[in-house]
Order: sequence, then C-alpha cells, then structure tokens
Amino acid sequence: MRITSERAAEILKEKDNFLILTHKSPDGDTLGCGTALCIMLQNMGKNAKVVNSEEIPRKYGYLFESVKCQEFDPSYIVAVDVADTTLLGDKLSVYADKIDLCIDHHGTNRNYAKEVYLREDDGACALTLYRIFCEMGVTITKPIANSLYTGISTDTGCFRYQNANSECYRAAADLIDLGADNTTINTIMFETKTMEYFRLLTEVLQNMRTYLDGKVSMLIVTQEMLERTGASNDSTDAITAISRQMEGVVAGITMKQRENGKFKISLRTHEPVDASKVCSLLGGGGHKRAAGCDAEDDFKASLQIILNEIADELSMPHESV
Amino acid sequence: MRITSERAAEILKEKDNFLILTHKSPDGDTLGCGTALCIMLQNMGKNAKVVNSEEIPRKYGYLFESVKCQEFDPSYIVAVDVADTTLLGDKLSVYADKIDLCIDHHGTNRNYAKEVYLREDDGACALTLYRIFCEMGVTITKPIANSLYTGISTDTGCFRYQNANSECYRAAADLIDLGADNTTINTIMFETKTMEYFRLLTEVLQNMRTYLDGKVSMLIVTQEMLERTGASNDSTDAITAISRQMEGVVAGITMKQRENGKFKISLRTHEPVDASKVCSLLGGGGHKRAAGCDAEDDFKASLQIILNEIADELSMPHESV
Repeated sequence: MRITSERAAEILKEKDNFLILTHKSPDGDTLGCGTALCIMLQNMGKNAKVVNSEEIPRKYGYLFESVKCQEFDPSYIVAVDVADTTLLGDKLSVYADKIDLCIDHHGTNRNYAKEVYLREDDGACALTLYRIFCEMGVTITKPIANSLYTGISTDTGCFRYQNANSECYRAAADLIDLGADNTTINTIMFETKTMEYFRLLTEVLQNMRTYLDGKVSMLIVTQEMLERTGASNDSTDAITAISRQMEGVVAGITMKQRENGKFKISLRTHEPVDASKVCSLLGGGGHKRAAGCDAEDDFKASLQIILNEIADELSMPHESV
Repeated sequence: MRITSERAAEILKEKDNFLILTHKSPDGDTLGCGTALCIMLQNMGKNAKVVNSEEIPRKYGYLFESVKCQEFDPSYIVAVDVADTTLLGDKLSVYADKIDLCIDHHGTNRNYAKEVYLREDDGACALTLYRIFCEMGVTITKPIANSLYTGISTDTGCFRYQNANSECYRAAADLIDLGADNTTINTIMFETKTMEYFRLLTEVLQNMRTYLDGKVSMLIVTQEMLERTGASNDSTDAITAISRQMEGVVAGITMKQRENGKFKISLRTHEPVDASKVCSLLGGGGHKRAAGCDAEDDFKASLQIILNEIADELSMPHESV
C-alpha cells in the first residue's frame, strides 16, 4: 500500500526495534539511507541496526562510524532503496515476505512491502528519506547529514546525471549547512581510483576500437586483463562510463568477459541511440541511455548485431566488426 | 573602491553601452558571467557586448547563442571574474586603466577598477553576479540561467571542490528551476573528452612512475607525446588532475615539456603535503593543494629536490628518482 510522508513519519516515531535492509551490490544511496535512518532512530532512543547481504566496500566505512552496535530482537523491518526483494541478496532473502515498510525512489518498485513510501521523481532515495525526516521534525546531526548527502551525491553522479533536479541540489545545500563534509565525501567517492584501475584502463585504451566514423567506441575487458592488473568489478564499471565520454561517440560498447569465458555487453549512449532497444535484440534491456545484455558464444556475431542496429538508428551503412 | 550589491545593481540599471571584459585563457566562469550580464543588459534594451583577448574554445559556443551582435561605441567598461589587469591578455590590455566596474570573487583581486563588487567567499563569480541580478529584480531567462549555471558548475568542478558551499548549490537549484539545462551543460563540460586526450592518457599511464611506497605518482608529458597523439593543453590539465586521483597518493607530480624542451612541474597534493612550500624550493608557488614551478635544465635534479621535500614532509627516507 502506498503511503504519505506523514504516515511514514508516524510509523518511525511509533515503532521500535528496527531492522533496516539495504540492497546487494551496495552503493552510496542504499547504505547512506540505511545509516541515516539507523542513526536517527538510535538518536531517538530506539533500537535499530542496518544490514546487507554482502561485505560493505571499504570506502563506505565512514558512514558506519556513528552507528551504535545494539543487541535486540527486531520487530519492525524497513527496506531502503530496494526496488525488488530479489535485490536483497542471499543472506537477507529470508526477510522477503516480512517487510513492513519500504522507502524507495525506483519507478520499478515491486510494491512488496506492507506499506511503501515511494517518490519516483527523487534523484536518490536519500532525498525521499530526507523528506520523512523533515516531516518528523527530527534533528539532523552531522553523521546523518553525511549519510544523506552521500546518497544524493552518489546516485546523481555528483549532480551530473539527468536525475539531479533542483530538489537534489536544494537538499544537498541544506545538508551542507547541517554539517555534511561534501568535499571529503566527493573526494572519496569520485576523485579516488585504485592503481589497479589505472593499470586496467591503460590496457583497455590500448585495445580500444571505434566504428561508424568514430560514433561508436568499443572497449574490451578480458579475464586475462583483470588477472594481470588485479582490477575489481568496480573498476570495470568506471570503464563502462568512459566508453561514452569520448567526443563524437554516441554509443559506447563495453565487452566484459565473465569468469566462464562468456562476454557481457554494456551499452551507454547519447541521443538518438536507444540503448534499451539495441540490447533487447540479444534478450537484454535497461534504460534509454544505459542498457546491457549477454553476448552469444560467438561474441563477434553478437557485436555485429549490436553494431548493425546502432548503424540503423543512425541511418548509416553497416560496418564489419 | 569596494561597493555593495545595491550600488552595483544601481549602476547596471543606470548606465548604457557596456563593454564587458573577460579574462584570458577563458573558462566557464568568466565566459558565463560575460554572456549572462550581456544578455541581461540587452534584455533591458541596452547596448552591450562581451569580449575576450583570445579565441573562445568551441565547447563554450552555446553560451553565446542568445547574445545579440550590436554595433555601438562603448561608454562603460565592466570586467567579470578578472582578478588583475594582466589577465586581460594582449588584445584587451588597452582597457587596463579604463575599467569602471569589476565584479569578482578572487581574494587576490588587485582593486584596479573604479568600483569593485567583490565576494571572496563565493565559489564562482557567477554566484556573485547572480546576487546582483537578484538585487535588481530582473527576469532571469533560460539563456541567462544557462550562463550562470555554467559559471558555478565549472568553477566548483561540478560541485566537488572545496569552494562548493551551500550557496553554490542553492543558486544552482534556483537556476535549474529557471530553465538551466544542467545535464547537458555538465555533459559538455565534464563528460566529454577528445580521442586525442585518451591517446595521450594511454601513453602517460604506460610511463607512470610511483615513489615513496606509492605515496607519490609521477606522470610525464613530452612534446613528442603531444605531437604523436595530437592532444592539446586542455588535455594536459586533465592529466594533472589524474595524478592526485590514485588511491594512496598524497602528491601527484606532472612533468610537462614545453616547446623549448624545458619542463614545467605541476604538483597536486592531499593532506599533509604543502604543494606551495614544495614548489617554492624551485622558485614557484601556488596554493596548499595545487602549485607549480619550472624545472632546471637538469630536470631529474629538480625532480629529486621536489621528491626529497615531499619525503621530508611525510617523515620518510629520501629515494632516488
């Protein structure tokens, strides 16, 4: 059942012994929401803990510094930034049909919780949560401000993506005034890359190809490259982003080899290429500007299908890979 | 003479036939201020034009789309984001002692104009100018909002740098509500890099060295690399930024060869390395986190001096380059 921010505020004031669930492959938004909510509830004298199915990447460690470790039996379960229970991951899947409240901003939310406070137009779930905090009139301390700011900044690519609307900027301004260390947070999240990433980037750029008069870039990441450079999956994500950053490129293809040897294709586009439409040809999907699919065993044939569709969308002649 | 925003607003309302000067090596802030002010004055039915000593880089072209070309004899001269008349460049240096009004945010402003509206704490001159527009109560049209947003976003590194305070975020929120195309602007300014840049980056990363247990990175850009890759000076600036982005690095050194064969050293640091102090050993200077100097003819000897000082600041033993 969809609820208002007033009702969400009422619930949080009334209940106690909160278990807060975050999504697998945790990012700054789900973790920032988890810690912000947990600290806020603990500040109100309640019991609360925030959990994830996986190990938390080291760079998010600062979010948890002000979270107190409390032993109690949870009696009320909240999921934050979790669009679907499949995203809870293995360890938390036991809670899938027991979630009392979901706070989210995904238009694709599966409505799995007893009550849902959903704001599809919010650039980050941290903005949605901030609305509830404002409604509650609680004091937003510096650690809460840091957590919420982290969510908004990371989910909007540091205020660069399409979802960074004026409400994101205005909430960020409020949170900075409340003590959020915006510079430090953005340095950690956006200005720090591992040596392994740079080693991988060097290899990937050396092997870069372009097609259709430079309108398409193709980057390849093999298992051999990952082993040789020691780079992580995080690094591959950053490389996917680069595929679209080249001047003149309207479609950036990243072919990433899985451990089983097969390739996953990630597509990032600018107008007018519809990434979702292109990837649907190989059974994949996603958004207009970012989508993905799995390549067939003959990955060159898959690449050719992708390239032909992009050429068609650009009204250009086909080119062999 | 320092003036208030009220006085600056009064002047802009009263005068006519404005010549607006911007600084050499033009950036998004000086150009965004120039076009915002010019369009605003033209919208008021006045004559105005905005000029620069140099050719405007292509990526800033959109700022000028709504600037009308007017023929008139200037009678009032305004400089925007220009800290010192030496920054006007050759072509505009004739106006150095004729500037009526300066609108700026540099603490180092030389107070060269008859009247100066200066806000040292503003993250961008575009924020300073926005204050005057608010004071005037003028209508901020979409092209003006685009120009002001460009200034704020570019001067704060898309809201990442230390100067991005809450007032920058709040003004950006207002400008987005007034029609600024924030996503498009940030894509142009931050998410688009030339193929030549990526070619140069590949070569630079292949030749990267690290010292002092990975706490210091050293990137080198030779004239040969620039010729081979076709990369511009803009690209070298982006590479300088990368030198400090590596995890664990507290001092990033970029050695850039000039056309005469000699090397310029750029230093970017994190706490606790004082870049300005290090570079002062070779007669250079700058800020705590970003400074530069010229290398001696024996550039290895210069690099050794820099590295020794960094080691001293980190209380580590010296290491040979």
